[in-house]
Amino acid sequence: MSKKLKVGILGATGLVGQRLALLLEDHPWFEVTDLAASDKSTGKSYEESCSWKLPYPMPVNIMRIPVKPVKPNLDCDFVFSSLPSIIAGEIECSFARAGYPVISNSSSYRMEPDIPLVIPEINCDHLDLIPFQQKNRNFDKGFIITNPNCTTIALALSLAPVVKSFGVNSVQVTSMQALSGAGQNGISSLDIIDNVLPYIANEEEKVETEPLKLFGNLRKDTVEYANFIISAQCNRVNVSDGHMLTVSVNLQTKAGEKQIESAFNSYISPIHYMKLPSAPEYPVVVTSEKDRPQPRLDRYISDGMACVVGRIRKCKVSDYKYVVLSHNTIRGAAGAAILNAELLKVKGFI
Amino acid sequence: MSKKLKVGILGATGLVGQRLALLLEDHPWFEVTDLAASDKSTGKSYEESCSWKLPYPMPVNIMRIPVKPVKPNLDCDFVFSSLPSIIAGEIECSFARAGYPVISNSSSYRMEPDIPLVIPEINCDHLDLIPFQQKNRNFDKGFIITNPNCTTIALALSLAPVVKSFGVNSVQVTSMQALSGAGQNGISSLDIIDNVLPYIANEEEKVETEPLKLFGNLRKDTVEYANFIISAQCNRVNVSDGHMLTVSVNLQTKAGEKQIESAFNSYISPIHYMKLPSAPEYPVVVTSEKDRPQPRLDRYISDGMACVVGRIRKCKVSDYKYVVLSHNTIRGAAGAAILNAELLKVKGFI
Amino acid sequence: MSKKLKVGILGATGLVGQRLALLLEDHPWFEVTDLAASDKSTGKSYEESCSWKLPYPMPVNIMRIPVKPVKPNLDCDFVFSSLPSIIAGEIECSFARAGYPVISNSSSYRMEPDIPLVIPEINCDHLDLIPFQQKNRNFDKGFIITNPNCTTIALALSLAPVVKSFGVNSVQVTSMQALSGAGQNGISSLDIIDNVLPYIANEEEKVETEPLKLFGNLRKDTVEYANFIISAQCNRVNVSDGHMLTVSVNLQTKAGEKQIESAFNSYISPIHYMKLPSAPEYPVVVTSEKDRPQPRLDRYISDGMACVVGRIRKCKVSDYKYVVLSHNTIRGAAGAAILNAELLKVKGFI
Amino acid sequence: MSKKLKVGILGATGLVGQRLALLLEDHPWFEVTDLAASDKSTGKSYEESCSWKLPYPMPVNIMRIPVKPVKPNLDCDFVFSSLPSIIAGEIECSFARAGYPVISNSSSYRMEPDIPLVIPEINCDHLDLIPFQQKNRNFDKGFIITNPNCTTIALALSLAPVVKSFGVNSVQVTSMQALSGAGQNGISSLDIIDNVLPYIANEEEKVETEPLKLFGNLRKDTVEYANFIISAQCNRVNVSDGHMLTVSVNLQTKAGEKQIESAFNSYISPIHYMKLPSAPEYPVVVTSEKDRPQPRLDRYISDGMACVVGRIRKCKVSDYKYVVLSHNTIRGAAGAAILNAELLKVKGFI
Repeated sequence: MSKKLKVGILGATGLVGQRLALLLEDHPWFEVTDLAASDKSTGKSYEESCSWKLPYPMPVNIMRIPVKPVKPNLDCDFVFSSLPSIIAGEIECSFARAGYPVISNSSSYRMEPDIPLVIPEINCDHLDLIPFQQKNRNFDKGFIITNPNCTTIALALSLAPVVKSFGVNSVQVTSMQALSGAGQNGISSLDIIDNVLPYIANEEEKVETEPLKLFGNLRKDTVEYANFIISAQCNRVNVSDGHMLTVSVNLQTKAGEKQIESAFNSYISPIHYMKLPSAPEYPVVVTSEKDRPQPRLDRYISDGMACVVGRIRKCKVSDYKYVVLSHNTIRGAAGAAILNAELLKVKGFI
Repeated sequence: MSKKLKVGILGATGLVGQRLALLLEDHPWFEVTDLAASDKSTGKSYEESCSWKLPYPMPVNIMRIPVKPVKPNLDCDFVFSSLPSIIAGEIECSFARAGYPVISNSSSYRMEPDIPLVIPEINCDHLDLIPFQQKNRNFDKGFIITNPNCTTIALALSLAPVVKSFGVNSVQVTSMQALSGAGQNGISSLDIIDNVLPYIANEEEKVETEPLKLFGNLRKDTVEYANFIISAQCNRVNVSDGHMLTVSVNLQTKAGEKQIESAFNSYISPIHYMKLPSAPEYPVVVTSEKDRPQPRLDRYISDGMACVVGRIRKCKVSDYKYVVLSHNTIRGAAGAAILNAELLKVKGFI
Repeated sequence: MSKKLKVGILGATGLVGQRLALLLEDHPWFEVTDLAASDKSTGKSYEESCSWKLPYPMPVNIMRIPVKPVKPNLDCDFVFSSLPSIIAGEIECSFARAGYPVISNSSSYRMEPDIPLVIPEINCDHLDLIPFQQKNRNFDKGFIITNPNCTTIALALSLAPVVKSFGVNSVQVTSMQALSGAGQNGISSLDIIDNVLPYIANEEEKVETEPLKLFGNLRKDTVEYANFIISAQCNRVNVSDGHMLTVSVNLQTKAGEKQIESAFNSYISPIHYMKLPSAPEYPVVVTSEKDRPQPRLDRYISDGMACVVGRIRKCKVSDYKYVVLSHNTIRGAAGAAILNAELLKVKGFI
Repeated sequence: MSKKLKVGILGATGLVGQRLALLLEDHPWFEVTDLAASDKSTGKSYEESCSWKLPYPMPVNIMRIPVKPVKPNLDCDFVFSSLPSIIAGEIECSFARAGYPVISNSSSYRMEPDIPLVIPEINCDHLDLIPFQQKNRNFDKGFIITNPNCTTIALALSLAPVVKSFGVNSVQVTSMQALSGAGQNGISSLDIIDNVLPYIANEEEKVETEPLKLFGNLRKDTVEYANFIISAQCNRVNVSDGHMLTVSVNLQTKAGEKQIESAFNSYISPIHYMKLPSAPEYPVVVTSEKDRPQPRLDRYISDGMACVVGRIRKCKVSDYKYVVLSHNTIRGAAGAAILNAELLKVKGFI
């Protein structure tokens, strides 16, 4: 076990950084050795500098680690980045240039042609962009891979069985997103008590485009986007964790209700047999109770790594509609990045 | 002032009954004289029997009125009914048979061919079904008219300018509905704290069908339904009052963005010049702020009688999409019924 | 009506500034003519610079007023200050020095010996400190008066009948305070959802000391503090507006339950007969319902200017205990300042 | 492992019944074999009859158990009762009479002189009332023991170090209680959104009396109550789980701040060395962060079986004050009953 890979977390004191630290507490392959955050935290221990906000205690083994500046001189085998988008671009590039594999949760590079945007269950082959990226950008051993936006992940995972079995022409999605998606101080309490916010900056654009890259085909050094269309309406609701989406899908190949249900229920992802430590047994869990999924009751199903689909039924306008829930800071962020790291390891990239 | 019509409220102690009582407090045409509720309230004064739950004081002039059984021997010119659906059908019929005009908020008769389902701004001519209804059902002077479900009202009002200017082929709607829509004790606090409920019994069916009758054409003694299609996904969120809907519309006659905005902004309803006391100056209020409407901030616009539309923009799948908010127990229930009563009076039916 | 006094608001874009603007919309004596706020708002109209967050529309007559820097060159007869404490001290002094009466809601000067800390119903005579203050500080026509902290106001108002009738030895108070007390962005939504915060910076100190000045006796140029003791435990709960307090009082003169209730119910404040426009008819409203007051249902009683006392009963440890509610941004801040201004006018200070 | 004691749960479908089932899932000594609930559940499997509302899945091993009527013919070694108080009295007695040890969470028998009211860390010796009870009531092998009310438990546990080290004269407590304390449907969402409820039926009486029995001295066949006094003010706040209390204590033996802190920090309970499976390592956990404990972040400390004390400081009116949090359905109900059962086993009563 002394062979665990050493991990650095960039943006370690933020909400996703905290989730990463928590999820990696007893990871079989990885060990957190370096925590980096903005200057005001530097020099202090993680315990001192971090305003820990998760309902589980801070892992004891990282409390004493001193927080370092976010500079590419960390002693680790690769880094997770949960930096704010506004600064992530430059910093992540500097780490990749310095030889670090960068597994990023930020949006800066997601749609760049030579950067893999990956959900292991959907497009694990897109990692093959890495050598082209390294050549393109003159990276030596370093590289950058990204996971999608938290709402995209819920949508894309739930679409995977449908895309695979029937193909999709178009998707309408309305999200009811949790507060943690905006970070620890993103939403003021007075803005959300007894309220719904019908706007999340840049969110609809991400949800309408990222899935097309995810479901796209790798053509040597580039991804040919999937050719369906998505329309998204994104809202913030008074929920701590767990994004809920209502989805309507128009299918390429028409299908009966039993076929649809069977597609969801029998879906096995391409990485099923890899048994990655953070992979849920089934990435799409189907509930048959008429009033489920619900964020408070279902967000921790499969340790927060599955999406939960319910109320699959005919749609008068599209073909089918359903509801999907996924934990936005686990499956939608920290857990997504860790799963990507596990895939990289199995594929020999780290 | 002695000429005010005398009003009875059936189901006076419930949440919609309380709203009715409050909204009628200083009504220029109507005066509450009779309050009827279930047996356990009977005999006591309204103040004693009613667990008043509105954030405004109970009107002083009705506190002492004794609550009567819900039987058609009230001393009033017409009745509002906010009875639970399960008992409304029989009771409302008994009142109509006994000669009372019944203005109902319950769902029992909404889709009956000879019962007007009315939003004054949309289909005030449907009141002309009343004589046919009276003949059909052997009612003498009594009759029944209904207003739609609270979610339908928000949707239909917001669609009115679009249907009128361009026609509609199909509508996709996702609702985020307030707690008061389920009545005072409808939703347990533990079911909604930090949560969203993705199911509301019978709601989607109502939202998918009632607008077709509302926008239908009166053909002598029957309504020919509008021929567009609606798909609804209804959710409960942790908001006290104010239903929010995301809507996507496919138009019959294609139109540019400016035309759409202009249709919303310049919309004048057919009853605009009647100046009904409870009618909002504009039933559709358009907000240009990117993160509005919001339930807590906007639900009382125009005293809760307008719907507020925001974020009108192109939809990649349909033609246009937008958000709409309306106060579900005012515009969506008590206020809707009162507006119907005002229309009846102007048209000479009461 | 051209004789209305011209009013400036310092800190006009904050939450209390907005409440001041709203409450002054149709004030019979005062008219808002100047709005001042931090530099980033300067130059723009109030409508453009202010992120309006009240559930009522911004008053039309102030939308177009250009926001000015917070400097003592405003064209007005006096100013309300709702500036953050951190900058209020210096700025308020500069206004007073420049000849403006300053009616402050901030904490900077509250406990200064020559600055009146006033609740009109409790200590309107303390305004007589003003001439001493002016002499002390070399103010010419300008001066500063303050109202207490929002929690203090609820406590002190509710204690007024008890102090007057029986005297008080000690008070134990636990507060459950609303979010708006911390300002628009004071409390993050993730910090309060499904939660209680048992700490509010500096709050307990204020609640334990300010009432002693309020109930103190004016001795010529100074206030002799009241000699009872207060212990406060302050908490934040998930409520938008309305501070709730549980209070236990030990009396100087022992009294029976009927005497206590009668003291509350028959309490007439010293300013009762002044009929100040913003004064509630009764500053202490007593409710006899066993589960009231409640913030959502009772905070707007008397337009939010009364405190509502309930559950008056014997205490096994002290003598009596009760619950009190008051609207923290109306009675506890903006309304308190306006009432002080009205008192100043009647007393001839402005 | 075949030697596990067989356990029945009376009231198995309620919220505390569900917690019992969950906490007993992998218990080393006990095994749930019988589930009993009201008639409407009878005959169906637990999975069918129970509307499971915990954010963790129902234990697989009890899903198929058929729910039985609440009658004393269950095949088990003892029963937990989480029946509603209104019916608990008679039923629990019938079970005891039929020979079952009854470990009750309901309030019916708590204050009966011959029924032990037990928190193991406080008064484990009170179990010695059992033989007297059996004689008194003509029970053969059966008997009844109870745990206190959920708010009492938080208060009493936190008082334990103080009572032991210094003695107590009086206690003032204000509670901010969670929704789950009222059961799954106890509090309507409209009653608590943006609100606080200042009244909980019968709660203050329980909190003011139960601790006196808990801290009382066993005198052969009766408990001599502790002779301090408690005054309680109980409120409901919008929190799912976790009761928060502010407490002020007047000490018998005066003590300095360091002594107090040391009493809390060094407190070892009398059952510490028994290593009961459900006992927290330390029943009183002290936090030094100025804004903790908080329900959402701290309720699961020590698996929800500890109380968390914070903000210990001088009180101007009493001697010391502090805040305490405890998980009301774990430490305050289901976990309390299980811990009592474990104590009974170690002491040879079951």
